[in-house]
Amino acid sequence: MNEAAFLARLRALPLHPGARGLADDAATLGPFVVTTDTLVEGVHFLSGDPPADVAWKLVATNLSDLAAKGARVEGVLLNLPLSDAAWDAAFLDGMAAVLAGLDCPLIGGDTVSLPAGAPRVLTCTAIGAEAPAPARSGARAGDALFVTGTIGDAGAGLALLQEGKDDAALVAAYRRPQPRLAEGRVLAPLVHAMMDVSDGLLIDAARMAAASGLAVEIALDAVPLSDAFVRARGGTRAARLFAAGAGDDYQLLFAAAPDRTPPAAATAVGRFASGAGLRLTYEGQSLTLPARLGFEHGLR
Amino acid sequence: MNEAAFLARLRALPLHPGARGLADDAATLGPFVVTTDTLVEGVHFLSGDPPADVAWKLVATNLSDLAAKGARVEGVLLNLPLSDAAWDAAFLDGMAAVLAGLDCPLIGGDTVSLPAGAPRVLTCTAIGAEAPAPARSGARAGDALFVTGTIGDAGAGLALLQEGKDDAALVAAYRRPQPRLAEGRVLAPLVHAMMDVSDGLLIDAARMAAASGLAVEIALDAVPLSDAFVRARGGTRAARLFAAGAGDDYQLLFAAAPDRTPPAAATAVGRFASGAGLRLTYEGQSLTLPARLGFEHGLR
Repeated sequence: MNEAAFLARLRALPLHPGARGLADDAATLGPFVVTTDTLVEGVHFLSGDPPADVAWKLVATNLSDLAAKGARVEGVLLNLPLSDAAWDAAFLDGMAAVLAGLDCPLIGGDTVSLPAGAPRVLTCTAIGAEAPAPARSGARAGDALFVTGTIGDAGAGLALLQEGKDDAALVAAYRRPQPRLAEGRVLAPLVHAMMDVSDGLLIDAARMAAASGLAVEIALDAVPLSDAFVRARGGTRAARLFAAGAGDDYQLLFAAAPDRTPPAAATAVGRFASGAGLRLTYEGQSLTLPARLGFEHGLR
Repeated sequence: MNEAAFLARLRALPLHPGARGLADDAATLGPFVVTTDTLVEGVHFLSGDPPADVAWKLVATNLSDLAAKGARVEGVLLNLPLSDAAWDAAFLDGMAAVLAGLDCPLIGGDTVSLPAGAPRVLTCTAIGAEAPAPARSGARAGDALFVTGTIGDAGAGLALLQEGKDDAALVAAYRRPQPRLAEGRVLAPLVHAMMDVSDGLLIDAARMAAASGLAVEIALDAVPLSDAFVRARGGTRAARLFAAGAGDDYQLLFAAAPDRTPPAAATAVGRFASGAGLRLTYEGQSLTLPARLGFEHGLR
């Protein structure tokens, strides 16, 4: 069954009032927000990826969804496969590093054996507290679209790895994403809509606009790039298109009134308006949208 | 890495105060209890099992852990693989049946693609509320050991299926276990310790005794058997040993004062005493313990 059909069937099941129609990054549950993601070897990560980095991504990407809700991290549950000793030891070292580094306690979980040769499947369920929990659907016509940090670093890091090259900052952005928890805490009470950029700035902005029943226009020249990104790929229109479609940024994307400086460092990259769809401009001119706006997968 | 070593490493990670040392069936989290289990094709279920029954077991076994905490069901999160259309359709029919049948809403989840030919891996995270949440470690010397319902039905049902035979009641006990949610609600405020019988009466009783720092003695002749079980396997000592080691019962096992009738139908099958270990009797005589007390797997 394809994902759209599967999701439609799931949405027809009896839903919890906090499920938000299975259309948001997290569910609300009393004083908590809850989000869960599964990583599959050969789909979301490669067999050759350092196991410690797999552990980091598993936790950090879930905490990024909590950041988008403005939550304080309560902890995680982990569903993990038993594997070979070397992989498991390195993975658990990475788990210790990410839980300590992101101040995230372990709440519970499950360990299972897999049949010989089966790809590893790992699940993290993250729980946050005290979350204003802005939806991704609350943008208003006239809002500015902001993004924290810089865009494209992880994508540039992945491209370097695929070419057998290296750049410490860009590869770290890909392998050890930093969820924007502190930024989420101060932004969430003030924004109209917020989500994390996991699949790419363009596709995620388009999703926020669609969820909000609005159109969004993005100025490609305004997309914030890091010095490391510009050194690796330049700051041309093509480089900017790459950055905006690359994904794995785990920055926060939010809609807020345009006349107010956000309480966390962020760059205005676009504007919401009545209508529908995504428009892209460069130096004031409309651009044809690329065929691929970002990654498409998963019930997010 | 073997499971004991893996678990020891997990327990050395920063743990949430509600994690109960990763030694209980559920974690406590503010007003909630949380439990999670992963089922793997070829390990916890077979490729040929009816997909609707896999859905039922995935949810029902997690709700059984909530029952052991005396929780009201708040809902579940599901991490599910996209698969072939026929399997997915039947699975989702089963999911609709179990969620409706157990009055359990869907809170959220994730769907993923698996590499071609990979075994299905399914995770359910169940959240309950208003739980007295008795630990499995609270039994006291002199307490009676009680169990709800009858023991061995699921094991007898599985054995029949493996022989190509059938018995509607026994096969249903195996394929569609009924979590003892109502019983758990009335028992939990009164018991000293409670858990569900998932791996077998003997091994689970031994675990409760070990967690409580006590010895437990079980009278095999007192183990409650259903009429259907006795018709299929008889009521002999051997049949009772089979029942007590078979697993998949999903009844509630609890320690309580021996002089008080429990508020839910239950049978006293043993007694806790100071010391350590499991003793088994039959017609007043000590029995040698079977080599295999039940299933051993998983971080429960």
